[in-house]
Amino acid sequence: MRKRLREPRFAYRHGLSTAAYRELVFDWLRELARDGLGSAAFPRAYGGGGNIARFLAIFETLGAHDQSLTVKFGVQFGLFGGSIYQLGTERHHARYLRDVGTLALPGCFAMSELGHGSNVREIETEAHYDPAARQFIIDTPNESARKEWIGNAACHGRLAVVFARLSIGGEQHGVHAFLVPIRTQTGGVWPGVRIEDAGEKGGLNGVDNGRLWFDRVRIPRENLLNRYGDVTEDGDYSSPIANPTRRFFTMLGTLVAGRISVALAAQSALKAGLAIAVRYGASRKQFGSSEGHEVPILDYLTHQRRLFPAIATAYAFDFALKSLVGRFVAAIESGHDADAEYRRVEADGAGLKALVTWHTIGGLQAARECCGGQGFLAINRIAQLRADTDVTATFEGDNTVLLQLVAKGLLTDYRQQFHAAGARGILRYLGRRASARLARVNPVLARRTDEDHLRDPDFQLGVLRYREERLLGSAARRLKHRIEAGADGFGALIECQDHLLALARAHVERRTLEEFARGTDNAEPGLRPVLHRLRELFALSVLEREEGWLLAHGVFEGAKAEAVRALVNQSCRELRPHAVALVNAFGIPDEILGAPIAMAGAP
Amino acid sequence: MRKRLREPRFAYRHGLSTAAYRELVFDWLRELARDGLGSAAFPRAYGGGGNIARFLAIFETLGAHDQSLTVKFGVQFGLFGGSIYQLGTERHHARYLRDVGTLALPGCFAMSELGHGSNVREIETEAHYDPAARQFIIDTPNESARKEWIGNAACHGRLAVVFARLSIGGEQHGVHAFLVPIRTQTGGVWPGVRIEDAGEKGGLNGVDNGRLWFDRVRIPRENLLNRYGDVTEDGDYSSPIANPTRRFFTMLGTLVAGRISVALAAQSALKAGLAIAVRYGASRKQFGSSEGHEVPILDYLTHQRRLFPAIATAYAFDFALKSLVGRFVAAIESGHDADAEYRRVEADGAGLKALVTWHTIGGLQAARECCGGQGFLAINRIAQLRADTDVTATFEGDNTVLLQLVAKGLLTDYRQQFHAAGARGILRYLGRRASARLARVNPVLARRTDEDHLRDPDFQLGVLRYREERLLGSAARRLKHRIEAGADGFGALIECQDHLLALARAHVERRTLEEFARGTDNAEPGLRPVLHRLRELFALSVLEREEGWLLAHGVFEGAKAEAVRALVNQSCRELRPHAVALVNAFGIPDEILGAPIAMAGAP
Repeated sequence: MRKRLREPRFAYRHGLSTAAYRELVFDWLRELARDGLGSAAFPRAYGGGGNIARFLAIFETLGAHDQSLTVKFGVQFGLFGGSIYQLGTERHHARYLRDVGTLALPGCFAMSELGHGSNVREIETEAHYDPAARQFIIDTPNESARKEWIGNAACHGRLAVVFARLSIGGEQHGVHAFLVPIRTQTGGVWPGVRIEDAGEKGGLNGVDNGRLWFDRVRIPRENLLNRYGDVTEDGDYSSPIANPTRRFFTMLGTLVAGRISVALAAQSALKAGLAIAVRYGASRKQFGSSEGHEVPILDYLTHQRRLFPAIATAYAFDFALKSLVGRFVAAIESGHDADAEYRRVEADGAGLKALVTWHTIGGLQAARECCGGQGFLAINRIAQLRADTDVTATFEGDNTVLLQLVAKGLLTDYRQQFHAAGARGILRYLGRRASARLARVNPVLARRTDEDHLRDPDFQLGVLRYREERLLGSAARRLKHRIEAGADGFGALIECQDHLLALARAHVERRTLEEFARGTDNAEPGLRPVLHRLRELFALSVLEREEGWLLAHGVFEGAKAEAVRALVNQSCRELRPHAVALVNAFGIPDEILGAPIAMAGAP
Repeated sequence: MRKRLREPRFAYRHGLSTAAYRELVFDWLRELARDGLGSAAFPRAYGGGGNIARFLAIFETLGAHDQSLTVKFGVQFGLFGGSIYQLGTERHHARYLRDVGTLALPGCFAMSELGHGSNVREIETEAHYDPAARQFIIDTPNESARKEWIGNAACHGRLAVVFARLSIGGEQHGVHAFLVPIRTQTGGVWPGVRIEDAGEKGGLNGVDNGRLWFDRVRIPRENLLNRYGDVTEDGDYSSPIANPTRRFFTMLGTLVAGRISVALAAQSALKAGLAIAVRYGASRKQFGSSEGHEVPILDYLTHQRRLFPAIATAYAFDFALKSLVGRFVAAIESGHDADAEYRRVEADGAGLKALVTWHTIGGLQAARECCGGQGFLAINRIAQLRADTDVTATFEGDNTVLLQLVAKGLLTDYRQQFHAAGARGILRYLGRRASARLARVNPVLARRTDEDHLRDPDFQLGVLRYREERLLGSAARRLKHRIEAGADGFGALIECQDHLLALARAHVERRTLEEFARGTDNAEPGLRPVLHRLRELFALSVLEREEGWLLAHGVFEGAKAEAVRALVNQSCRELRPHAVALVNAFGIPDEILGAPIAMAGAP
C-alpha cells in the first residue's frame, strides 16, 4: 500500500475543480482496486483476500494520504461491500462481492436520512412486500425520509444498500437493509430514483456525496440482505433473532468496522500533520536572545506544549486501537459477531472513535497554528487534513451521542452488578473494579509532590481508575435521584449529560493508558525507554487537564497540581531531542507526507 | 453596508474555481469602493469620509459576509491605504489616497518575509539610497527575504507598501516603508519585480496572496513614506523620533487598526455561525423519551453547553471591542497616535485580537459540530467561515506572540511601579490594582456555595482580578529567580511561557468582564436583565474553566467548584428561551446569513 501511494500518479494536486477532484479520486480508487487492496477482507472465494486485519491496515495506511480517497475507499469496500458481506448471505456474496472488490460495481451505503442522522431507529424509508410480484417496493414517504449525505451517490454509485422499514401486509418488522439499483449499467438514473448532488462541502470534496429519493421502486425479493431477517415468497417473516431491538442493534453492528476504520484513518491524518509540524518546527527559526541568532520554534515551551502531548496521545491511541482491532478481528473471524464480546468491542470502538477523532481535530489545529501561514497553504497539507477530518466528529455516529452510549453501557453494567447479583455480586464487583491502589482518597498521597511519586505509573493509572470509578458511582446516584424525583429515564439522562460525557471520557482514557502500558511492556527493549516517557506524558497531560476535578475531590492538593504542571513542562523538554525521531517513527514516506515545509532543507 | 450586502449580486456562490472566486471578490470590492465604503476613513480632501469609526463599523458588518471579501477589503483600504495615510505625508495622501479609495489603484502591504513572519524587526529586504539618482534601490538579498503571504499580490495589486531596511552610504537606519510599483498600468509585472502566486490555501481562496522578490528596483526618493523618517536629496536622514526602537514600534503602530479589524471581523463571522447553529438547533429534532416525540437538539444540555457560553463570550468581547474602538478612534482623531494611551490601545488590541480569534475558531467549530453533517455543507456556511477564519490565529500577529507581548507589558508596568517609584509608588500601585474585594484568599468565601454569592457580580469580578494579580506577581518572581540564577532575559521568558500566556489571558478576561458590566449598566433598561444573565454566564464559564487554578490556590474549595459547574448548567437552561432572540439580536439579515438550515421552516 505504501509503495503504491508513493508512486507519482498518487501525488497530490491542489486547486482542482470539484468535478475533476472527484474523477481523480475515482481513478485512484480504481488503481487500488486493481491491486486487490479493496477486497482484502472479502472471502477468497469471491476474489477477496480473506483477511480483515489486512484490510484495516490498508485503510489505516491510506489515512495519511488524501482523505477523500480514504473515505471513498471506506464507502465502497467497507460500508457498501462490508454490509453486503455482513448483512447478506451466500447468494449476495456470490453475486456481488467480486464486482464490488474490482470496482466494476460502485455502490452506496444509504442509511442516514435528512430527519434522522443519529437516530437510525426512526428512519422512515419504507419497504413494502408485494407477495403477488414477489418484490419489495422501496419508497420515500416524505422529505425528512430522503437519504442524505450518501457517499458515491452523486456520481459513481450504481447499487445502494438501503436501510428501510420492512412491512408485510400492514405488519411492521423494523429496519432492514435492501439492495436497490440507483443507476443503470450505462450511468443513467434508475427509474423511480431521484438523485441530487450534495454540493460543496467544508472538506472531502473528492467524495461525491448525494441525496436519494425512491418513488415506489420495485426490487426482487432476493435483494433483501437476509442474514438477520428473511421473507418467504408468500410473505412470511422470520429471523434468527427474535427480539426486534436486539435484531436492530445486531444489524447496526455492521457499523463497528466503520467506526474503527474512521478512528484509524483519523489517527493517520493526525500523524501526518504532527510529522509536518514537528519537522518544520525543528528547522524554522524565529526570535532569539540576540539579533541574528534566532532559535528553532520547536525549542519554545508553548510550541512543545501544543505538539508533544498530542504526539504522546497519538501513540496512546495507537496502542488502544491496535488492541481493539485485534479483538474485533478475532470476534469476526470466529463468527462471534453477535456475542457479548462483540458488544464490548462495539462500545469500545464507539468511545475510541469519539476521543480519537476529537484529538485529531484538535491536534491538527495545533499543528496548523504551529506552522503559521505556511500551515495554511494547501501544498503543506495540514489545513486540508484538518478540513477533511472535521466531519469525523459527527459522521459514523456523532461523538457526543457515542460517548453517551459508552456511559449508558457502563451504567447498565454497574446497575446489573449491584441490583441483580445480590451481596455476593456487589463484593465481586467491587473486588474487580476497585483493584486500583488509589481506591479511596489518600490525604498523604494527595500531598506528595516528589518526582518519584508523580512519575510512578501505578500512581498515574490509579488516579485515572479512581476518577472513572467515582464518576460512575456518582452518575448512577444522580440518575437514581432524578428518576425517584419523577423524571423519566430520558429526561434524567439529559439532565446529567455533562456528567455522562465526563464518565465516558474517563473510561476510555483509563483503558487507553492501560493499553499503552501493556504495549510498552511488550515492545522490543530498545524502544521501551522512549515509549515509557511518552506514556508518562500522556498520563500527566490527562492529570493536568483534569486537575480541577482532582482538586475538588481531594485527590490532589494545590501543590501537587502545580507539580504536575511543572512535570509536564519538564517532560516536554526531555522529549525535545526525540521529537523528530518520534514523528518519523510514524513511518509515513516523504511522498505521502507531501508538504514541502517538512522536507530536509526547507527554509 | 447591510443594505448593499443583501442585494442579489452579493449572494454566495459555492464551488467556484479559485480564479473565478478571486474575480468575484474583486468585483464585489469594486461595488463597495463605488459606494465610498472603502475610503470611509480617508480625509475628505481626498475623496474619503473622514470617519475612522465608520470605517471600522463597515468592516465589522462585512465580517458576517464572505471572509475573502472582508480580507481583501482590509488589505486594500486598511493595510495598503491605511499605511499610506498613517506612515506617509501630505504628498502621498494627495497623490494616492483617492485612487486607493476608488480601487483605481489596487495595492499591497508587503511586510512579512518568508524567514521573518512574526519577527518583523529582522526583515532583510534592503532599501539603499542612491544620492546621485535621488532614488532608493529596493532589493531582496536572499530567499528568506522574499515577501511572503502578500494579499492582492498574485493578481490585482499594482503598488505595494514595502517594508525594508533603509541604508544610506553604508549607514543603517532600520525598517522603513516604501511605495514600490509591482505592476504597470496595463497589468504587466514591473521590471525587476518577480511575483509568484501563493496558490491554494485552507481558506480565503478569494484573496490572491502572493510572493514578491525585488531585483534592485529603483524608486524615486519621494516614495519613502516619510512621516517617521525622511531622507533629503543629498542623503541626510532625519526623524521626529530619535530612538530607533521607539521609531520602529511607532511605525508598527499602523498594525493596531489591522488587529482591531481582524478581531471585529472574526467576531462577526462567529456571530453568523452561532446564529445559524442556534436557529437550526431550535428547529432540528432528534431522539426523545418516546418514539415520534423527538426533542429539539437545542434542548440538550450538551448542545447548550457548547453554544451558550460561546454566545455569552461573543457578547462579552463585543463590549470590550467597542470600548477599544472608541479609545482607538479618539487617539487617532486627536493625533495622539504616538502617545502612551495609544500604546495601551495597542496592547489591549493585541490581547483582544488573540482571545477573540481563538474564541471564534473554537465557537465556529462547536457550531459546525452542533449542526452535524448539515454544518459541513458549504451552503450552510459554517464550515467555510471556520476555514476562512482559521488563519486569524496566526496572521496580523501570531496569537501566542501577541499574548506574550501583553504579558511583557504587564510585567514592565509592574516592575516600574515596584522598583522605580519607591515605597509610595508600591502603595499607590497596590491601592490601584488590589481594589478587588477578594485581594486575599478568604477561607469563608472559598467555602460559600449559595446562589446569591455565586451570582454576585462583585464576587465573579473579584476572582478574575485576584487571578490576574496573583499570576502577575508570581510571574514576576519566577522571572526574577531565573535571571538571578543566570538566565538571560530571553531564556527566562521562554521557561515561563505558559505562565505568561495564562497571565495575559487572565488580564484580557478581567478587562472584558469589566467592560461587559459597564456596557450592561449603560444599556437601555429593558435589555439589562438578559445582558446581566449573559455577563453572568461569561463570568461563570471562565471560573469553571479555571477551576483547577482556583482550587489549587485556595480560592475555591471542592464544593464551590461543583456549585459553579451546576450553576453553568442552570444558567444555560435559563437562557434557552432567549437563545434564538439573542442570536437574532446580532442583526445579521437572512440574506447575509445565507444558510438554508437557519431559515424559518428549515427541516
